[in-house]
Amino acid sequence: MESWIHVSEKVKLKNPILIEGLPGIGNVGRVATGYLINQLKMKKFAELYSPHFLPLVLVHENSEVHVLNLEFHYMKGKRDIVVLTGDTQSISPEGHYEICSKIVEFAETLGIKEIITLGGFSEGKSMSKPAVLAAVNNKEMIKKYKKFDIDFGKKHQVGTIIGASGLLLGLAKPKKIDGICLLGETSGMPMLTDPNAADAILHILVKILGIKLDFTMLEKSIVEMQERIKKSDGLHKRMLEQLGAKEEPVRYIG
Amino acid sequence: MESWIHVSEKVKLKNPILIEGLPGIGNVGRVATGYLINQLKMKKFAELYSPHFLPLVLVHENSEVHVLNLEFHYMKGKRDIVVLTGDTQSISPEGHYEICSKIVEFAETLGIKEIITLGGFSEGKSMSKPAVLAAVNNKEMIKKYKKFDIDFGKKHQVGTIIGASGLLLGLAKPKKIDGICLLGETSGMPMLTDPNAADAILHILVKILGIKLDFTMLEKSIVEMQERIKKSDGLHKRMLEQLGAKEEPVRYIG
Amino acid sequence: MESWIHVSEKVKLKNPILIEGLPGIGNVGRVATGYLINQLKMKKFAELYSPHFLPLVLVHENSEVHVLNLEFHYMKGKRDIVVLTGDTQSISPEGHYEICSKIVEFAETLGIKEIITLGGFSEGKSMSKPAVLAAVNNKEMIKKYKKFDIDFGKKHQVGTIIGASGLLLGLAKPKKIDGICLLGETSGMPMLTDPNAADAILHILVKILGIKLDFTMLEKSIVEMQERIKKSDGLHKRMLEQLGAKEEPVRYIG
Amino acid sequence: MESWIHVSEKVKLKNPILIEGLPGIGNVGRVATGYLINQLKMKKFAELYSPHFLPLVLVHENSEVHVLNLEFHYMKGKRDIVVLTGDTQSISPEGHYEICSKIVEFAETLGIKEIITLGGFSEGKSMSKPAVLAAVNNKEMIKKYKKFDIDFGKKHQVGTIIGASGLLLGLAKPKKIDGICLLGETSGMPMLTDPNAADAILHILVKILGIKLDFTMLEKSIVEMQERIKKSDGLHKRMLEQLGAKEEPVRYIG
Repeated sequence: MESWIHVSEKVKLKNPILIEGLPGIGNVGRVATGYLINQLKMKKFAELYSPHFLPLVLVHENSEVHVLNLEFHYMKGKRDIVVLTGDTQSISPEGHYEICSKIVEFAETLGIKEIITLGGFSEGKSMSKPAVLAAVNNKEMIKKYKKFDIDFGKKHQVGTIIGASGLLLGLAKPKKIDGICLLGETSGMPMLTDPNAADAILHILVKILGIKLDFTMLEKSIVEMQERIKKSDGLHKRMLEQLGAKEEPVRYIG
Repeated sequence: MESWIHVSEKVKLKNPILIEGLPGIGNVGRVATGYLINQLKMKKFAELYSPHFLPLVLVHENSEVHVLNLEFHYMKGKRDIVVLTGDTQSISPEGHYEICSKIVEFAETLGIKEIITLGGFSEGKSMSKPAVLAAVNNKEMIKKYKKFDIDFGKKHQVGTIIGASGLLLGLAKPKKIDGICLLGETSGMPMLTDPNAADAILHILVKILGIKLDFTMLEKSIVEMQERIKKSDGLHKRMLEQLGAKEEPVRYIG
Repeated sequence: MESWIHVSEKVKLKNPILIEGLPGIGNVGRVATGYLINQLKMKKFAELYSPHFLPLVLVHENSEVHVLNLEFHYMKGKRDIVVLTGDTQSISPEGHYEICSKIVEFAETLGIKEIITLGGFSEGKSMSKPAVLAAVNNKEMIKKYKKFDIDFGKKHQVGTIIGASGLLLGLAKPKKIDGICLLGETSGMPMLTDPNAADAILHILVKILGIKLDFTMLEKSIVEMQERIKKSDGLHKRMLEQLGAKEEPVRYIG
Repeated sequence: MESWIHVSEKVKLKNPILIEGLPGIGNVGRVATGYLINQLKMKKFAELYSPHFLPLVLVHENSEVHVLNLEFHYMKGKRDIVVLTGDTQSISPEGHYEICSKIVEFAETLGIKEIITLGGFSEGKSMSKPAVLAAVNNKEMIKKYKKFDIDFGKKHQVGTIIGASGLLLGLAKPKKIDGICLLGETSGMPMLTDPNAADAILHILVKILGIKLDFTMLEKSIVEMQERIKKSDGLHKRMLEQLGAKEEPVRYIG
């Protein structure tokens, strides 16, 4: 049984760019995409489900069940924007490959030529102003984005990117889809949601996208998101304990 | 290799409803469906086998082997009733998705438009009279069933439902099959079969189904079922130890 | 990738019966089938390979590599006999189902109508004369075999049979292939090869098959087999340690 | 989702031989093939990707991401040579079978009739001059190669070969592809890259291949390779810890 994408609205997009942010270190990517979707009032048009997610449903306060999934949202503009966010990442290594392949295939059908993935980079220590690190799947992307305040390996060596944020770039390359991964430096505790790192990434992202974003609600928004994030993080942990695993795998870079 | 359903009798059903109850917390769902099947003398017409079940056979007292499976039973009435019960749930996360997808597909072919899943909800403490909590996959179901003594999140927040009882509702939704999950509050020990929680659920279920049920045999019936349940619970534990896992996964909500 | 069977000789068999014995508790099944094959000079005609076996090769003393496999041997007679033996069993639960399904399908193509599986039954204590217990997939088999010195649940309750010896019977049933599992009582140490249990089973098996067998070499033969068994048992353990598992799964009943 | 091979250059090869060396004990095979490729300026023409590799990307110093893969390089000569090297091996048992099957199939399409796999053999003690042990998938290979300084089981019994170096030979046999595995004796610490063992293997390999190789850069080259190897070894470890596994599986013989 394979992961599947349910398209609820067929959209025609103009020169679309894909922004991905899923749960991971500091929840940086997830928080950043969640804030974008809310503030820009983006519209959901597709959902990805996978047997590689935990086999459970969340129950919302209105008593409705919600199967863990990833969601694609879009917004029309000078350049159309697609944002991919979600509840979780794969709980198996094979699942990461399958899910990221499905996403890249879907991106191709949408006409996407560029992907920006968002994540956190844990330095194991606190810092006053988080840097934004980056990796690319095509050297041209460095030229294109070097005018922004991004560290392309000068001060920080990324080394590796675990999970969707890295694999999406790698699997997109043979499809001629350019990709850049923006990693917000977080202050050590990988399981704590880090608003500062998300803020740092978003400030660069709005410049790249040429959009306006009200940042005043970010902290408040994170507090609200935390509720839901905590619930599913707790679930991951509990479920994995039940499945015999001892550590929770929700510690991707992004 | 995929899970498969063996249909032993082709049945034509009138406006059928599916009731699911598998092993889980307090064995509430399993005990409730087992009692229904016995008391109502329902007839088995299909079996589901899966490579995601433990690779073993039970040996009955008459020396016959029994491959772990799930069983579909039916009963004719004003509204035909299908009951799904079984020995086990998937031992892998992917398996849950595959098995629940097969069940939903099979339900579709039977013309089923509504699913009621049964399970337990562990509060971690004892109570005098167990409440029945619920989650739905369609808000209309709350309207339909609010007249019964069901707590739709007023006193107890369900949060999540792990395993078949939750996933069935989630996967049934895009097929336009309405679903409600009834969870009987159990008093803390998730591995102990809880007759009170099963009794509480069954009292609501008979009202929903408009059927009559003799409750006097429930306790006695549970004592008998316990024999078989204990045997397979012990097996799960032993097998999983052999497979290197340290904790048994038979702790689904339902 | 699925398990596959490589047929090296196409055989036409007359009313063939399949005898299965793979590594398991006391190595009873494996030793018994190995002795049959050697003493009766049976001929190998097919091999089963599986991605669910350990990913390694044994290196024989002549420096040739050997991929872990199961082997089908046959012997012509009043009734043709096929014997299935092998190096290992599946290391994953799903693999057991897939491999046993392949075996049953292959048995069907050979025209096999009856399967006898062999294994050990660990009592956790030593005994002077090991009993032979049995389970069947069809009540008729009890009638057919009750004249032999087999305990159909009178003194010992089998309860469950883990792995191929049980699953083969279970999966053969819907194919109308009758099956009986003979379990030789072994004296407690499941990982020690038990010649007495193998001897007890073989004495009943020769009566069932109506063949003659020289038993004088059994002990000696086991000493020789032990070398190879030890090597692959050690491998299982070492490999599984490398794969992060802590206990070796080579403790099937049969 | 299956492993896949991406062919970047269609090559026509003359009587080609395949040399395989992947990460494993002492990194003997990987270091030997890496040195061959660099010194002989071989050209990459195909890459193998797999969902059975760790779901991560390496980030090079130039900020470009690299998906873990295996690489096929070739060199024209009297006899064309194909060298298979790579970042990793499968992290699941099933993956080993699938990946090795893909490699053997690909080798067939290239017209390869002989495979030499390279690995390390850990003796658990240090030695002055490492021996080169061997195993074959066809007795004829012993005759062919006994003139070289190879130990075909006289002093050292190999016993088993875990991972690609063994499985490739085993799976190549039914395809009528001859195979020999050369194992360089390493001095005990399986996780330390061992230049002496690689040197010993390479000296025999150049004689077999009838090529010239400058050995003076081997030690220097290994120091350089170590950087990258360390990085991915560390990653394996970290990732596997995250996935709940406690030991890293990068301890194949080759």
